[in-house]
Amino acid sequence: MKYVARIEVTLKPGHIDPEGETTRNALLELNYPVKSVRVSKVYRIIFETESIERAKALVEEMCRRLLANPVKDDYEYSVEETEP
Amino acid sequence: MKYVARIEVTLKPGHIDPEGETTRNALLELNYPVKSVRVSKVYRIIFETESIERAKALVEEMCRRLLANPVKDDYEYSVEETEP
Repeated sequence: MKYVARIEVTLKPGHIDPEGETTRNALLELNYPVKSVRVSKVYRIIFETESIERAKALVEEMCRRLLANPVKDDYEYSVEETEP
Repeated sequence: MKYVARIEVTLKPGHIDPEGETTRNALLELNYPVKSVRVSKVYRIIFETESIERAKALVEEMCRRLLANPVKDDYEYSVEETEP
């Protein structure tokens, strides 16, 4: 079966977000009255495995082993079957 | 009034996603059976302005002027009032 996962990786609160700060400064230079900017990443991953339970377990592993840094990132995801 | 915008910027279909390719290769090296990975960015922006209509207009402008590249990016956003 083919699955699609949507994984959002966000900095934990309190961690400095250099890309967000740079974006905020650029928006302020363009005269937008911006108070804060935080940037997060979304991974859309298509993969095959044998069941939805296994698909969710794989995504959890991918997050822990590669996509999210446990020290500074939070993550959340959804997984669903997709057409072959 | 204070507003929070959630803006997702995604590569248009057909455009090469080097970060997605790198992530895919790293996942394959870890033996995950991944077919494709696409990466998009989410900006969470807090700002002040006088009305929800003005807030949406500002976000549309920010996307066009800074956050999205009209040649290669699609974007979508939601805006809502937040506590002061």
